[in-house]
Amino acid sequence: MTDNSTPNRTELTELGEFGLIDHLTAGLKPFNSSTLKGVGDDAAVIDNGEYVTLVSKDLLVEGVHFDLTYTPLRHLGYKAVVVNISDIVAMNGTATQLLVGISVSNRFSVEALDELYAGIRMACEKYKVDLVGGDTTSSVSGLFISVTVIGRAKKEEVTYRSTAKENDLICVSGDLGGAYMGLLLLEREKQVFKANPQMQPELDGNDYILERQLKPEARVDVLEKLREAGVKPTAMIDISDGLASEILHITKDSGLGCRIYENKIPIDFVTADVAAEFQLDPTTAAMNGGEDYELLFTVDVNDFEKVRELKGIHIIGHMLEKAEGEYLISNGGSLYPIEAQGFNHMREE
Amino acid sequence: MTDNSTPNRTELTELGEFGLIDHLTAGLKPFNSSTLKGVGDDAAVIDNGEYVTLVSKDLLVEGVHFDLTYTPLRHLGYKAVVVNISDIVAMNGTATQLLVGISVSNRFSVEALDELYAGIRMACEKYKVDLVGGDTTSSVSGLFISVTVIGRAKKEEVTYRSTAKENDLICVSGDLGGAYMGLLLLEREKQVFKANPQMQPELDGNDYILERQLKPEARVDVLEKLREAGVKPTAMIDISDGLASEILHITKDSGLGCRIYENKIPIDFVTADVAAEFQLDPTTAAMNGGEDYELLFTVDVNDFEKVRELKGIHIIGHMLEKAEGEYLISNGGSLYPIEAQGFNHMREE
Repeated sequence: MTDNSTPNRTELTELGEFGLIDHLTAGLKPFNSSTLKGVGDDAAVIDNGEYVTLVSKDLLVEGVHFDLTYTPLRHLGYKAVVVNISDIVAMNGTATQLLVGISVSNRFSVEALDELYAGIRMACEKYKVDLVGGDTTSSVSGLFISVTVIGRAKKEEVTYRSTAKENDLICVSGDLGGAYMGLLLLEREKQVFKANPQMQPELDGNDYILERQLKPEARVDVLEKLREAGVKPTAMIDISDGLASEILHITKDSGLGCRIYENKIPIDFVTADVAAEFQLDPTTAAMNGGEDYELLFTVDVNDFEKVRELKGIHIIGHMLEKAEGEYLISNGGSLYPIEAQGFNHMREE
Repeated sequence: MTDNSTPNRTELTELGEFGLIDHLTAGLKPFNSSTLKGVGDDAAVIDNGEYVTLVSKDLLVEGVHFDLTYTPLRHLGYKAVVVNISDIVAMNGTATQLLVGISVSNRFSVEALDELYAGIRMACEKYKVDLVGGDTTSSVSGLFISVTVIGRAKKEEVTYRSTAKENDLICVSGDLGGAYMGLLLLEREKQVFKANPQMQPELDGNDYILERQLKPEARVDVLEKLREAGVKPTAMIDISDGLASEILHITKDSGLGCRIYENKIPIDFVTADVAAEFQLDPTTAAMNGGEDYELLFTVDVNDFEKVRELKGIHIIGHMLEKAEGEYLISNGGSLYPIEAQGFNHMREE
């Protein structure tokens, strides 16, 4: 019989999610010349001549990434697809195909999976992505969803995290922090419901942030807008873990520093209202909340005029040389170091 | 709060794994002309001009697909990669890139994941496949491994399940039933160990079938052999669920019937010995055992002479028109209908 225990035990929490991936994938060297980019961006990039194939993959785990108490299965299916498409969009590519692996316990019925797939199909329809692979197996407990998305882009149009330049402008689409406030609201109502199942949830007027949490969209429209304006981002990432964590990916991978201006960060009024209700700084929700799936990107400073004209795109800061570090300039003018404190699913346990 | 229950409840077991996938993916129509083949073969096929991209994905779930009591994590990592590569091989393609998603509970240490990744890296090294994506998250309990493999093939060389022709010869590589007998052996020793932890396992002399179960290989060498001999299979599939289940995929998808001769099915003597010990018919192990990851393929009858010469390739039957049905011709000359009774992970619960 096998002994899977080890003499030296390092807890997973000691490394954290990103530390763990770095550790497990350290020193990998590609065997195939078609491997243009492996681990370490929103998607892997595979050479196919004029075009590249983009591949990204996400795991969604019940009890870690979603709570079925307040997440309708149809929304969950939709979101599982969208967050993957968002990774392809963040490479400046177009998602084309999708593979979905689902592992379920017998707590779920065929009708429940039909609901989940209705959401998956809805997202496929909306983004014109083909579901080309399905694998469904049992789990001992809970629901696991593994989505792989395939996309394509012209080789010269692929946008990495590592290619921002000094003085580039930092831009973000839409508004931030809403998905996180939506989550806090749903969590609060869950507790209320647990304490008193007769109580009706108080979610009125907060549709916007609930939708941000339950039914995010991939910003394909932002890519189109940038193309029309003749602007090619120099680096790009999607905001799944919060602005702080994402900008640090860009600065670290590009070997640069940055400044972000608190008063430039776009925050919707519903997000701000609910944050106030929770006695939470809305900037914190934007910096560390995550799951907004907006695009964070850098553009050449010469594109300033073009970008300034674009509705729904906000210039929030700029890139500096590495020695300048990464700082948020507060409304009061103070400098705060930017630190990744987003959802870290590895540390949570 | 959301009510995920449904008025009409159909149990997942009522449909079974394949029935469920068919049900969930029914009526899908592709949006992209690059989608050459979606759900329903060993891998999806995506057009890239002269070459196609092949994509396959598998989920491995602790307690359903593997048992860590007797599966070393290193072997598990190796096998998780190999079974995916085998899907690309079954399309007559070459695996090139790999993405691995892992979901683990805090029962696992960093050192345990290192072991798992050591196996993954070993398989990548052996098959010259690049690990280009990694996603590691927590699970509430247990270990889930989701592997996506990318491969490529010249468009005209891709081998589907649906393209066998009447009178084609049915061939299989290697030998069958070994992986299943290895599993039965490991399961037996686990029970013995549970009853008396001091007892040493009796696994001596059975290395071959244990290796078949714990460390399978993808038959890249068989593809090379066929290419050298100038033989292109007319249809192909890898044997993950047992010969019966796999030949039925080919007959069903090709709209044909078949005959398989029991006395032609290749079975290793260790497999036969251990089957005898378990009072099990070795043909049953070959037909319904699964996990051998050998290749099952059809060739044009005119290739008979070429194939007959190839070491390790066995001609076990032939394809007939659909009306003839699918039958095993026993050693005694009787006809037995071929039925899929392989591991059905959906029905197991």
